[in-house]
Amino acid sequence: MAVYLDHAATTPMSDTAISAYVDAMAVVGNPSSIHSQGQNARRLLEEAREQVAATLGCDPIEVVFTGNGTEAINLAIKGLFWARPGTRILVPGGEHHATIDTVEWLERHEDAVIDWLPLDELGRVRLDALESALATDAASIALVSMLWANNEVGTLQPVAEIAALAARYGIPLHLDAVAAYGHVPISFADVRAASGAAAGVGLVALSVSAHKIGGPVGIGALVLSRTAALEALIHGGGQQRQVRSGTQDVAAAVSFAAASGAVIPAMEGESARVEALRSRLVAGVVAAVPSVVVNGDPDAAGRLPGTAHFAFPGCQGDSLLFLLDAAGVSVSTGSACQAGIPEPSHVLLAMGRDDETARSALRVTLGRTTTEADVDAFVAALPAAYAQAARAGLAGRTTSFDR
Amino acid sequence: MAVYLDHAATTPMSDTAISAYVDAMAVVGNPSSIHSQGQNARRLLEEAREQVAATLGCDPIEVVFTGNGTEAINLAIKGLFWARPGTRILVPGGEHHATIDTVEWLERHEDAVIDWLPLDELGRVRLDALESALATDAASIALVSMLWANNEVGTLQPVAEIAALAARYGIPLHLDAVAAYGHVPISFADVRAASGAAAGVGLVALSVSAHKIGGPVGIGALVLSRTAALEALIHGGGQQRQVRSGTQDVAAAVSFAAASGAVIPAMEGESARVEALRSRLVAGVVAAVPSVVVNGDPDAAGRLPGTAHFAFPGCQGDSLLFLLDAAGVSVSTGSACQAGIPEPSHVLLAMGRDDETARSALRVTLGRTTTEADVDAFVAALPAAYAQAARAGLAGRTTSFDR
Repeated sequence: MAVYLDHAATTPMSDTAISAYVDAMAVVGNPSSIHSQGQNARRLLEEAREQVAATLGCDPIEVVFTGNGTEAINLAIKGLFWARPGTRILVPGGEHHATIDTVEWLERHEDAVIDWLPLDELGRVRLDALESALATDAASIALVSMLWANNEVGTLQPVAEIAALAARYGIPLHLDAVAAYGHVPISFADVRAASGAAAGVGLVALSVSAHKIGGPVGIGALVLSRTAALEALIHGGGQQRQVRSGTQDVAAAVSFAAASGAVIPAMEGESARVEALRSRLVAGVVAAVPSVVVNGDPDAAGRLPGTAHFAFPGCQGDSLLFLLDAAGVSVSTGSACQAGIPEPSHVLLAMGRDDETARSALRVTLGRTTTEADVDAFVAALPAAYAQAARAGLAGRTTSFDR
Repeated sequence: MAVYLDHAATTPMSDTAISAYVDAMAVVGNPSSIHSQGQNARRLLEEAREQVAATLGCDPIEVVFTGNGTEAINLAIKGLFWARPGTRILVPGGEHHATIDTVEWLERHEDAVIDWLPLDELGRVRLDALESALATDAASIALVSMLWANNEVGTLQPVAEIAALAARYGIPLHLDAVAAYGHVPISFADVRAASGAAAGVGLVALSVSAHKIGGPVGIGALVLSRTAALEALIHGGGQQRQVRSGTQDVAAAVSFAAASGAVIPAMEGESARVEALRSRLVAGVVAAVPSVVVNGDPDAAGRLPGTAHFAFPGCQGDSLLFLLDAAGVSVSTGSACQAGIPEPSHVLLAMGRDDETARSALRVTLGRTTTEADVDAFVAALPAAYAQAARAGLAGRTTSFDR
């Protein structure tokens, strides 16, 4: 069995989530059916919604289940854009492709104007640049969207300050919390309250995904403020406040709720455990390859506990990935969604790194099942892989892969 | 345990599909990850795609997995509309709300013009009206969309003739086969070939859903011709030919494939079994309530084998539904997606029935688990329920239900 250190791409389903899924698969009935069997399914669904809402600090009615995080992000960004008169979208560089590709489609297809906000060298959005963009013709702005935690380097955004700025200028804010959820405390209501947001503006939407916390792959959620104006992305039977039509997936919702109910209350202790493993891993990497650069915030309070992101000078990240894979260790060069295409990390580029550095990235992400032995196996495999990748250098990849 | 006769709303997952889902949940890895664990997941996913493709008579690359049938329908209709210069959409009355609400959104929001095509008294689209609409300024037409089988009354559309007309006039056609799949033979390639369609026109898209055939709820598929021009609805990592981004749900795809592999090869024998049960049910209903009207095509070749749709003169359909539910029998007034809102059946209205008749509808749908005992239980419960519903009459519902 390979050593799995790619928990940010997807993490194994927890036994609790699997068991909840199995039980719920036996329930017969469409929760939109009004007979008793349908209403029994509906009750399970709404209990699941309450449980998920509790882990996100929002009201159950604000939880809109989607097919995954990407759909939630598309729904938030397109839905807010379509519901607003303005055409400008404020978004930092270094976002996940679910955001980048969505806003670029709106630019091509719906006459959106994208204000790309700069990141600092740690991956944080520059608050002065955000405020300056907000202060320039606020009426022309449709929305602000950004990651709570960067999915590659793990840097946390200063969401309280960002939400306060959006609230002050009266603009809706969407946070992509897919990478943050389960790793740092999230309370939708607390962020809204602290920001002093009026109805329909400030933090109004927040996206998460179940499979990043040990739930099933085919479900995510958009937390959507009751007061937000939003056009639906998927139309039909009018389920979920007309925001997301389609037969509701009771089994996936119940399993999502079980996963979140296991992970969120245990987060503090688990984060400390994972943070310690990450320290061990980073120390091992620095000892093995002294020239390595550790990306993201060096301060633990400013990043995800389980994400370690490196630049290995003189290496291609994907060469390293293949050599480590051959040695039985699964890691990533960055977002799994972009893996398979050897490109420089757009996140590192947005953080001001050069192309060569951005091609040398390796992301190692720890999770619930990670042990010291996993970390040690990675550290043991690294020197040989690094030596071979460094010999191959930046000219090309050591192994070809046809996606 | 209630007698479940609402298989068109959702049908129980088959043991094969549950078992496949359970096995696949234990597989770790995002199929977009390029390490071996990711590629193992990818292999399972692509095998599932091949199996589903085989049941739909299309190439594996033409299968785009979605979160459900409603998403597939939205993707087809919006995606084809956005990719075409024309603004007219030809669509019959009596479609599922996934189509109606989608085209009405395009009308409100994207300046689409809807040509509502008439149905005959059995629920079939009037081919002369379709041809006349196609012959009128074909260049202004974006697409034609319709149900293969009506989800309420079960009437099959003459899809070969419809596809031939779309091919002849050079217009893309989407078929919503959610209700038809698993009940009548479907071959995407055969329909395209027989229609003489050129690249990108004629039948180019076909939607199905897994949970209607015993698969899991959270997955559907759009069969999309390689030559079709279509804008994505959900943007991001570029999965599935850039048509539908988002982490691919391996467990759901494997379970969908298992369900389809069990159902489709056994369809002929199972359809005959269900058709015989339906005949027994209809005979029992007519004997119990001689004034009942059986809607849809009386010819078995022209309708789904397991769907029986009635109008009970002088009754509200939802009153009957609640009384039967109290007697332990689960049925529907129509699409589950609209259930909970006591409205006349828009399908019966589109077939030319009056409002009173359209409010008296009851849909009884049989499936894989249905037995003679289920049918007999329904027939035994009907007279008392009918008598009480008839006393309450058309004035109102006997039971209130807050959706």
